[in-house]
Amino acid sequence: MTEHRDVDTPGRMMAAEIAEQPEVWRRLLIEGAEAIGVAAAQIADRRPRFVLFVARGSSDHAALYAKYLVEITHALPAGLVSPSTITVYGTRPALKDVLYVAVSQSGGSPDLVRSVEVAREQAALTVAVTNNAASDLAGAAEIHIDMLAGTERSVAATKSYTAEMLALYLLLDRARGGDGRDAAALPDLGERVLESQGLVHSVAQRYRFAQRLIATGRGYSYPTAKEAALKLMETCYLSAQAFSGADLLHGPLATVDPQVPVIAVVPEGAGGQAMLPVLARLAERSADVFGVGAEPALKNLTGGIPLPSGVAEELSPILEILPLQQLALHLAVARGLDPDTPRGLHKVTETL
Amino acid sequence: MTEHRDVDTPGRMMAAEIAEQPEVWRRLLIEGAEAIGVAAAQIADRRPRFVLFVARGSSDHAALYAKYLVEITHALPAGLVSPSTITVYGTRPALKDVLYVAVSQSGGSPDLVRSVEVAREQAALTVAVTNNAASDLAGAAEIHIDMLAGTERSVAATKSYTAEMLALYLLLDRARGGDGRDAAALPDLGERVLESQGLVHSVAQRYRFAQRLIATGRGYSYPTAKEAALKLMETCYLSAQAFSGADLLHGPLATVDPQVPVIAVVPEGAGGQAMLPVLARLAERSADVFGVGAEPALKNLTGGIPLPSGVAEELSPILEILPLQQLALHLAVARGLDPDTPRGLHKVTETL
Repeated sequence: MTEHRDVDTPGRMMAAEIAEQPEVWRRLLIEGAEAIGVAAAQIADRRPRFVLFVARGSSDHAALYAKYLVEITHALPAGLVSPSTITVYGTRPALKDVLYVAVSQSGGSPDLVRSVEVAREQAALTVAVTNNAASDLAGAAEIHIDMLAGTERSVAATKSYTAEMLALYLLLDRARGGDGRDAAALPDLGERVLESQGLVHSVAQRYRFAQRLIATGRGYSYPTAKEAALKLMETCYLSAQAFSGADLLHGPLATVDPQVPVIAVVPEGAGGQAMLPVLARLAERSADVFGVGAEPALKNLTGGIPLPSGVAEELSPILEILPLQQLALHLAVARGLDPDTPRGLHKVTETL
Repeated sequence: MTEHRDVDTPGRMMAAEIAEQPEVWRRLLIEGAEAIGVAAAQIADRRPRFVLFVARGSSDHAALYAKYLVEITHALPAGLVSPSTITVYGTRPALKDVLYVAVSQSGGSPDLVRSVEVAREQAALTVAVTNNAASDLAGAAEIHIDMLAGTERSVAATKSYTAEMLALYLLLDRARGGDGRDAAALPDLGERVLESQGLVHSVAQRYRFAQRLIATGRGYSYPTAKEAALKLMETCYLSAQAFSGADLLHGPLATVDPQVPVIAVVPEGAGGQAMLPVLARLAERSADVFGVGAEPALKNLTGGIPLPSGVAEELSPILEILPLQQLALHLAVARGLDPDTPRGLHKVTETL
């Protein structure tokens, strides 16, 4: 599909930032490698026993992805901090042996800055992953990782989300002695995945009048479901809900009927395999299920976007989200909305 | 409102179990005290440095409540485990100095049992909070706390949810040297709150044709928002979404318009206070906001159910959920549904 978007085209900025992602990842892999290596060595040196993440919005989904990396590849306990415990309730937690990672595109939200200041005073090793080395958050943390995504102008975060995931992957891989080699193929693979844009554009028409939607995935791909739902909420004002495949069966399955479309993320690997019983339960409820993932898993669904095979499962989320970002963009435009400037939102959200 | 529900009345079991809650709490406070005291002493003895919770569905919301208790009143780092990291990815995490708490009404889901077995092998102190002392989960953990809620028959959990919260509150309070005294007033307060049933019944009519709904709260009351949303999904098949007040501003606010009702939980205390700027942003979007909480905070909203004043904020969630359980029940019945037997669900959900 050839696109000629001028300055007034709705979603122009979001489209450009989606397309830019493989380039952002190349920059991070090359120019970011040294700083990430130094930070990883500092982390390895301190031998953290627990890892906490603090983030909001899309960055919180990147943090959730990194929590799976810590739990699975580092075999360490991990948690997502509720920032209000520090900023609203004034707690000063005991954080010796804790690696405390804040993730934020802008680095500007006061609650994250405050929580990192307190964590640092409380003996945690603090790391900030941001897109602005001059931000308060970057300054508050002992270690700063620049995601090098370039200025992000669309309110709906896209390139910063995948840059955050890649930065966190590289940091955690290096911290356990890896060389980040598996990630080298991502930029080329990302370019291939973005080529399904024409298919995604036609899929979007199908959801033109949907009001509600459910997204689901398991393990590493659960954050993809959450981020896809958030994009659809922000840009299309859909009531889009995300559940891990297992949680979906514990209650929310009751809301599924043929009128509520489901998006399932089913990549190669253990997480995608664990989705198969969930797909079976959805089929029992005659659900309309659109898949993103491994070709064989898409076969019995309403439709799907296949992903390249042979990608390490822990890197798959960086690719999976691309067609879902495109879906949010094209659906918003089909609905007559401008996804670059969602109603009621600003680019930098400041919460206390 | 006088109720004459016979065996065929839709929601009969759910109504009875909602009404039973103050009695369940009395039993737990009296008959459960000794076992909880013994367990609390074992926990205090081991001086855990990090606390992990593992749970699904409503129990996951009780676990989230307990995570706030740990973070705020124990000033310890805490996390919610993704069970798939153990059951799907086969991780064996390093859990020395970790308190590992599984929460489940039935104690029957294989993924929770397996995760507790692994945690115990990996040197965590394991605790199971269940409603069935003969369950596999109770047997797998080093310590078992019986929530003493009696058989729960409605698929939509109500009394087990508040019993779990109270059991976790008492356990964590005793583990830091408290005497659980603040909780003694809960049964009488619960009876008072349940008297707003007539008001809730009329409020339910207002949502008769709603398809989507947003629930929000901050801090201790965020789990209340999540549980209210789950009840409405399970029993009314609404697309009900819950966000912490801060997360709502980071994206999902765009979905709010006068056609999407909002339920806000605004109790006395810091969490409720922190909701006031969120209520102001919702007012800017002309949202229809129904509140549950402190009388002054309800004044400028569309409507509200006031809660008794003077309740310790960390106990408030046990009361806040009562009118929201009643709302789910009455709305389901108004829609011609039977909340005791939601489509597509079974009482015990077994996930792997």
